Amino acid sequence: MAANPVDTDALVIGAGPVGLFQAFQLGLLEISCHVVDALPHAGGQCVELYGDKPIYDIPGTPATTGRGLVDSLLEQIAPFKVPMHLGEQVASLAREPDGRLRLTTDRGTVFVARTVFVAAGVGAFVPRRLTIEGIGRFEGTRLFYHPDALDRFVGQDVVVHGGGDDALRTALALVAQARDSGRPARVTLLHRRDGFQADATLVAGVRAAIAEGTLGFVVGQPTGFDDEHVEVTRPDGDVVAAPVDAFVACLGVSPRLGPIADWGLDLERKQVPVDTARYETREPGVFAVGDVNTYPGKRKLIVCGFHEATLAAWGATSIVFPDKAVPLQYTTTSTRLHELLGVARD
Amino acid sequence: MAANPVDTDALVIGAGPVGLFQAFQLGLLEISCHVVDALPHAGGQCVELYGDKPIYDIPGTPATTGRGLVDSLLEQIAPFKVPMHLGEQVASLAREPDGRLRLTTDRGTVFVARTVFVAAGVGAFVPRRLTIEGIGRFEGTRLFYHPDALDRFVGQDVVVHGGGDDALRTALALVAQARDSGRPARVTLLHRRDGFQADATLVAGVRAAIAEGTLGFVVGQPTGFDDEHVEVTRPDGDVVAAPVDAFVACLGVSPRLGPIADWGLDLERKQVPVDTARYETREPGVFAVGDVNTYPGKRKLIVCGFHEATLAAWGATSIVFPDKAVPLQYTTTSTRLHELLGVARD
Repeated sequence: MAANPVDTDALVIGAGPVGLFQAFQLGLLEISCHVVDALPHAGGQCVELYGDKPIYDIPGTPATTGRGLVDSLLEQIAPFKVPMHLGEQVASLAREPDGRLRLTTDRGTVFVARTVFVAAGVGAFVPRRLTIEGIGRFEGTRLFYHPDALDRFVGQDVVVHGGGDDALRTALALVAQARDSGRPARVTLLHRRDGFQADATLVAGVRAAIAEGTLGFVVGQPTGFDDEHVEVTRPDGDVVAAPVDAFVACLGVSPRLGPIADWGLDLERKQVPVDTARYETREPGVFAVGDVNTYPGKRKLIVCGFHEATLAAWGATSIVFPDKAVPLQYTTTSTRLHELLGVARD
Repeated sequence: MAANPVDTDALVIGAGPVGLFQAFQLGLLEISCHVVDALPHAGGQCVELYGDKPIYDIPGTPATTGRGLVDSLLEQIAPFKVPMHLGEQVASLAREPDGRLRLTTDRGTVFVARTVFVAAGVGAFVPRRLTIEGIGRFEGTRLFYHPDALDRFVGQDVVVHGGGDDALRTALALVAQARDSGRPARVTLLHRRDGFQADATLVAGVRAAIAEGTLGFVVGQPTGFDDEHVEVTRPDGDVVAAPVDAFVACLGVSPRLGPIADWGLDLERKQVPVDTARYETREPGVFAVGDVNTYPGKRKLIVCGFHEATLAAWGATSIVFPDKAVPLQYTTTSTRLHELLGVARD
């Protein structure tokens, strides 16, 4: 937490296709940059939601997939050796006395950047949370969302909430852990209905565990939570309170704009308004590109984000190189760009 | 000339990368279109000036060439079977009483279009012309620019003007024609200096023909032209008048905006001003995309033209489908777009 801040010309928030191409355009203009993304891998929504699905409207690419496009963009930016900070979400944005921007992630990384490019798409992909009032204060002690490790639950009474792959996999892993650890623990699966949208093998495993009594199963919705119990409302309206040590919610991930919403960027329906000359927000030096921004005529298409990233990079030149008129150079003919891209001269 | 006009939702002027992607975006929106280009092949500047040169900044395409990009775009638009009118230059634009646009090419093709997309780049690639006053009236009778066929010059006294490949090739072909036809004819090469920027074999052939007396050579610039003579100003300032039957100028091709400059589009330094919501000119229904347009922040980059073409296609929907709110669909998920693109459903 006390490490030196990362000093950079530009910080790109979001490693989806538009964030990656943003890094490419910054690289061509010799503007140093780092990229941060909440997901543990590059690609954002493009990989998360349609990694294996076809995309036909990337210009000059008759057909690809979400993952294929991201792989191509990673290859394209490789010459710039852009540092990527994955699995971190930018939590705060503040202005330094000298006008630079100070950003801190939820993992404690601090960036001091002259420009920021919000390429956050529809937001960071974070676990869908329960909306029971006051429940937030239990998070991390008795309430967990999509936990990676389960060893902390040994010997505990745990309710797993959800009906998808991750909920079922977690419930079965807890049952196995209870059996293997030799420390009795009660595991209960809670789902709004008696049916699962999940991989057939997982469903069969859960049905078997319920039948043999190693996994409890309750149909209902959690409607209350206190220091000892979870309160569940059954489909018939009955309310039951069950004692729990830990409540594990696996309700999927959904995009959330998160802290960006609090940055004073004057949001319109969760979109950040920008001009169309530089794609800059109302905060000088903070640009917004791709699905997160809005302006007259905006369409949420990747091809538009590529253009926005290009003009935003140019917009940054007057901040990063205030005393220099940066000329437009073409990758076809510029020997300087060939050097930067690591390609031989013609 | 009296053929029925071509009735179309959209006419795209220019078959460079941006014009081709314009046709793609119109296709996705089910707006019928035709494409016209002055060159005899698709690709425009991209193929004409850097067909075999590398391009590194097309998003998602780490490396290609001018020709490679154009080939990919032609593959991408293939499902829409867009009629291409190559080797034709749009000469005039007029408004029909019903508000549609009437365009005529130099070959007499007439289009009646509800929308026009000017994707003309830096202009149509046309032969560089002599600027001697009044010379235009001789064009096609005694003055010729880069003529394809030379048989009309049999038995004539011809001056070939220029010092590049095409001038030298034409001069040598005329010398060979004079010899082979058995009809005496004088062929003279005119160039501003005694030196040629051309293929070494052609230069050697020209030097040999001059030495053996079958090809005349004059250093100077044409400064006057009448019904019988061409007036040449020598480097020392002397002016000589030589009788000619035909004057063949091979001064290279250069892009010219041509008739578009006269369409009332309020040009700024040869660029067409557009808004950034629809990339529409001051003429309703006439859009301008790619290098030909200008707006605050404009950079002449292909990636920007792709975005402009996308929003311009959307801009056309309110003209082509005035009573319909056209929803944004994604090529990843829309079965209608999959039908249009001729790809199987997932």
